[in-house]
Amino acid sequence: MSRPIRLNAFAMNCVGHLAPGLWAHPRDQSHRYRELTYWMDLARLLEQGLFDALFLADVNGIYDVYGGKPDTAIRNAVQVPVNDPLQIVPAMAAVTRHLGFGITCSTASEHPFPFARRMSTLDHLTGGRAAWNIVTSFLASGAKSLGQDRLTAHDDRYAYADDYLDVCYKLWEESWADGAVIADKARGIYADPALVRPVQHQGPHFTVEGIHLSEPSPQRTPVLFQAGASGRGRLFAATHAECVFIGGPSRTVLKGYVKAIREQAAALGRDPRDLVIYNLHTVILGRTEREAREKLEDYRAHASLEAGLALLSGWTGIDLSQYDPDDPFRRIHTEAGQSAIDSFTSADPNKVWTIRELAQWAALGGRGPVSVGTAASVADELQAWAAETGVDGFNLAFAVMPETFTDVIEHLIPELQRRGVYQTAYAEGTLRQKLFGRGDRLRSPHPAAGHRQALSA
Amino acid sequence: MSRPIRLNAFAMNCVGHLAPGLWAHPRDQSHRYRELTYWMDLARLLEQGLFDALFLADVNGIYDVYGGKPDTAIRNAVQVPVNDPLQIVPAMAAVTRHLGFGITCSTASEHPFPFARRMSTLDHLTGGRAAWNIVTSFLASGAKSLGQDRLTAHDDRYAYADDYLDVCYKLWEESWADGAVIADKARGIYADPALVRPVQHQGPHFTVEGIHLSEPSPQRTPVLFQAGASGRGRLFAATHAECVFIGGPSRTVLKGYVKAIREQAAALGRDPRDLVIYNLHTVILGRTEREAREKLEDYRAHASLEAGLALLSGWTGIDLSQYDPDDPFRRIHTEAGQSAIDSFTSADPNKVWTIRELAQWAALGGRGPVSVGTAASVADELQAWAAETGVDGFNLAFAVMPETFTDVIEHLIPELQRRGVYQTAYAEGTLRQKLFGRGDRLRSPHPAAGHRQALSA
Repeated sequence: MSRPIRLNAFAMNCVGHLAPGLWAHPRDQSHRYRELTYWMDLARLLEQGLFDALFLADVNGIYDVYGGKPDTAIRNAVQVPVNDPLQIVPAMAAVTRHLGFGITCSTASEHPFPFARRMSTLDHLTGGRAAWNIVTSFLASGAKSLGQDRLTAHDDRYAYADDYLDVCYKLWEESWADGAVIADKARGIYADPALVRPVQHQGPHFTVEGIHLSEPSPQRTPVLFQAGASGRGRLFAATHAECVFIGGPSRTVLKGYVKAIREQAAALGRDPRDLVIYNLHTVILGRTEREAREKLEDYRAHASLEAGLALLSGWTGIDLSQYDPDDPFRRIHTEAGQSAIDSFTSADPNKVWTIRELAQWAALGGRGPVSVGTAASVADELQAWAAETGVDGFNLAFAVMPETFTDVIEHLIPELQRRGVYQTAYAEGTLRQKLFGRGDRLRSPHPAAGHRQALSA
Repeated sequence: MSRPIRLNAFAMNCVGHLAPGLWAHPRDQSHRYRELTYWMDLARLLEQGLFDALFLADVNGIYDVYGGKPDTAIRNAVQVPVNDPLQIVPAMAAVTRHLGFGITCSTASEHPFPFARRMSTLDHLTGGRAAWNIVTSFLASGAKSLGQDRLTAHDDRYAYADDYLDVCYKLWEESWADGAVIADKARGIYADPALVRPVQHQGPHFTVEGIHLSEPSPQRTPVLFQAGASGRGRLFAATHAECVFIGGPSRTVLKGYVKAIREQAAALGRDPRDLVIYNLHTVILGRTEREAREKLEDYRAHASLEAGLALLSGWTGIDLSQYDPDDPFRRIHTEAGQSAIDSFTSADPNKVWTIRELAQWAALGGRGPVSVGTAASVADELQAWAAETGVDGFNLAFAVMPETFTDVIEHLIPELQRRGVYQTAYAEGTLRQKLFGRGDRLRSPHPAAGHRQALSA
């Protein structure tokens, strides 16, 4: 086929993800997030649509910048309450065979030794369908919950994450050699101790001594996602990520970002094709353009401006309650909110965006583009985005759950398939094999592969 | 019915739990521990047998005392490799409706803020069937993996655990009032911010500020299990535990322990009936006494002495590789191994136990009694144990998985039911309601309930 388009579904173990307010839409099912069947039904649906993965966001704090308190977030269920994303995966894995699962976990949350075991367990139980979205945390409220006075400085968080990953790679790749597990009932030998070695790690942040508690899982290191957009974040992503998740609102900005990160990966000796880049995107589909527009209006009527303001305040670090919603956004330009503001306003640099307009966008679409139309016109748009920017696919947010995904599967995917730009069956194998077609394990010169070589030496 | 007997099943997300070596038995399925279907089948089976819960052990390190290295443990799969117990539960919950799930998590492993969310998530997804077995860790190898030079002193670990629980109780019981979640689509209000309050905790070990990220789960605080047998551990259990899990090898010792812990709970103002006590027990059943004996011999032929020595060395902290297996155990009496030795030898204080005998016991039965016989004779034994010691039930370890549990369900449970001492149907409701019949939530004067009252004040 011509250059294929890849799709992930983007969700969160909570009521209001990137369309807060829409949980109150009569057809929305998000309030059922505490039920296993809600997630199992979603997983079956996504597998029917041949999605690469369900990508699960997470936060370790609350959106309390708006008005200096969490009230707006709590009232509108803006990413709070929010449950552990990890635990919904095993039930979804039990009813699917191919769908991948990307779990967001912060390096600020758990010591890498038990964390590495969690990811190995997930990779075992899913038969090699686990992915980890590496985040370093951005909410100050999360730091306070962990007894820290303030967030660690941005660049220091990445240095900490580098050390954290180093521990994980050693545990995943270096501790148990291939062939260590024999599982020979006749001889009564489960594993060969000569092929299992303790990790000895003395890093700037972690000192770890011990063997990995899990035997090697199908992928060893789970597929690595990263979303860093800053300079330091991009270096981190170019070094470690296999899948990059971005929320570029304009084709120009996105094209520059995609080019820069592929170049940076190449400069580190990696094959730029070893990076799959997904852009955040929301699609709203109708059988006619008019029906799609009406659906958008219906959704917008349920979207919450207040919720959008709470999200936007959290992302920018600016308490937007102090301003008139009809103020132009660029007037309240601060250094802290710089990159978030750029990311938004770059969608149309000549437009004077008001706070209200950006909050409405945040409340339906997050920070990514929103395409509204028939399957044909939305397919045109997605193809144009991919062609112009060099992204490999889209991380689809939902407006109404599961309606957004049902619409995509019933209308958009068949259209993309007719155009020969969407897979018509899953490839066999682990998530990594499906994505890259070059085996289950990370390959040199990725830093994880270096650890595996160290073992065979 | 007359005084009912309660049963839990005891297992671990690994190959060799309390019968290491037996994974190599031709009928044993333990090597399938990485497959979701293995656990889902087990959960269905246990629910068929009306078990209270599947109780999942865990360790955060390896058994490396024997010979001063982990080789014996690795070769025999003695609780290594061992995967995260948490993640097998959601898939099991999806195929059952009543079975409870007790998860062992160490207070040494994760900060209480994210941990509290994990347990709330588990309680939500299981519909109120979550239990937490609180452990404070005993393996030095686990401490080294977390970058600590040595294990924290035993009593200090309990002080740390007290502070840890205090944080958890505040998050579970105090942060979200009953009625905080409205979920009113018509008004677009998910929760009432006036009924959600940040926890402010300044303890000796943890400083936590923030609201609990999960809304209240059916039980709020999961059912609390504890296994502390030392003086300090018993005080901790009498204060916090609802279910106590012990491994008393003799009726005399067990009776004393049960009496002491119920008295200690009463002295703290708790109703002694609010403690359900399960003793570790292994049963091996045959249709005739002879068949049961033959089954035991067949199992013993697969049990590994070396694996038993590794377990026993880990539990006692004594490297038993330095001794002749036929040495009497009491000769190597050390202060460190004191309580473990007492626990074993008290089964028959006049007997001169050799290292070999105790290691063989460790390798089939752990530290608990082993009953071998027909359903009738084993039922007699269990009833006698319960009557003489005051325990409420048994935490059944397995020899061969799932055969041990299949035998129990086919033979022993019908016998106990005929005698009117085993439930014939599950009670409705959460695990706590099933166990105590007095509601879903912890009641005063349990320390968790105190936090809930603080909120309504």
